[in-house]
Amino acid sequence: MKRIAAALLALVALSANAQTPDAIFPKNSRVLFQGDSITDGNRGRSADPNHILGHGYAFIIAARHGAAFPADGLEFFNRGVSGHTVQNLRDRWQKDTLDLKPDVLSILIGVNDAGKGVAPADYEKMYDQLLADTKAALPNIQLVICEPFTLPVGKMIENTNRAALVKELRTIAASLAKKHNATFVPFQTALDEATQRAPADYWVWDGVHPTYSGHQILADAWERAISKSPAAPKKTIFHYEYTPPKIRGEK
Amino acid sequence: MKRIAAALLALVALSANAQTPDAIFPKNSRVLFQGDSITDGNRGRSADPNHILGHGYAFIIAARHGAAFPADGLEFFNRGVSGHTVQNLRDRWQKDTLDLKPDVLSILIGVNDAGKGVAPADYEKMYDQLLADTKAALPNIQLVICEPFTLPVGKMIENTNRAALVKELRTIAASLAKKHNATFVPFQTALDEATQRAPADYWVWDGVHPTYSGHQILADAWERAISKSPAAPKKTIFHYEYTPPKIRGEK
Repeated sequence: MKRIAAALLALVALSANAQTPDAIFPKNSRVLFQGDSITDGNRGRSADPNHILGHGYAFIIAARHGAAFPADGLEFFNRGVSGHTVQNLRDRWQKDTLDLKPDVLSILIGVNDAGKGVAPADYEKMYDQLLADTKAALPNIQLVICEPFTLPVGKMIENTNRAALVKELRTIAASLAKKHNATFVPFQTALDEATQRAPADYWVWDGVHPTYSGHQILADAWERAISKSPAAPKKTIFHYEYTPPKIRGEK
Repeated sequence: MKRIAAALLALVALSANAQTPDAIFPKNSRVLFQGDSITDGNRGRSADPNHILGHGYAFIIAARHGAAFPADGLEFFNRGVSGHTVQNLRDRWQKDTLDLKPDVLSILIGVNDAGKGVAPADYEKMYDQLLADTKAALPNIQLVICEPFTLPVGKMIENTNRAALVKELRTIAASLAKKHNATFVPFQTALDEATQRAPADYWVWDGVHPTYSGHQILADAWERAISKSPAAPKKTIFHYEYTPPKIRGEK
């Protein structure tokens, strides 16, 4: 019993500071976020200084881990560009991705392919090739594929065709993650779960672009997925999964 | 012993999930951030949708609490404008602050006053009047005064005069917080502490503007200060339905 109490006390000490996340990146990792407007979020365009990561999940993740582990030599880059499709990514891949030599590469792409009517088979073929090329150029890279998502709000209620296409791309993204041994981040699942706590437009204001609260959902889902990947630092004491409390019955 | 173990387990649960912050805002709070470029962070300019809070501490705070407490009816606004001094705030105060009727108003202002050579006595007089007018218009408002800061990086190494002026404004901001019964957020102290963990330019890249990691330091300091204010929701230790964390031994 004493030993259990001691172990619990150690856990309390370990987790007492709610601001300190678990370490999920190996030391000296360079983390690059690629994608469209959801990733872009008005990020800075100048190469130096490279400190402006936009108003989205990439910034939340970078801020949280940069502040928690200042001795770990982590670097975060955002190269999302509003409106881009997988073909747009391909056109700027050398300069905006391969030349940066990331250790961790996160990609969120698809909702504009769906919006522009790219055939799912073409999305798959181009995305597959992009991932293959990336692994050929950077064999040790840790790939992270984020699930394209929509919620039934605004134009995404009316435009059911686009939502249906995104749904197809989700399946493709998941299968490409499997094929290329990438970490898959289930953004759609995370947002669907969130809609049980508040209406869809609380999280994604126009069906495509998350609110500030929605971006926190993405950031949390991203970190959870990465923490389970084989590349995440091994933890020594306890690794636990936690279900957030459901009731806050306090004034 | 069992009760102690149960209490410890509850504490673990309370603090284990880094994603769930403590509630620091009363229900249905409208929180407004005012200030200069540090607050602005490329925030959205359209009134509707009002979901783009910029790449700074305001966004981090809004995202974290908006996601954690979706049933609480919290609203977050950012009306920071790059380059602004306390006089610029005064000129747009009715439209950008009073008309929005915030419950919580956070102000970070001063580094541009110092940069433009505003006399500290004028800064004090204008800021004092602004706070008095605000309380007259919105008697129940919770005021939050953030400490202006610099770190010795880049132009702030060369421009010691500006840094010295900011130091004077810090003392004034603290005394105004006391006078107007506002919560004071010690940003300079928080950043000074951070420089014991990494060099100054890791946190504030040019001496004035925080990096993504630096903005996390500001957000954490802000939340800590607010959580101690009388207006914060009262906490009890066991105020939720306890779900034991799944503990799995680590390989």
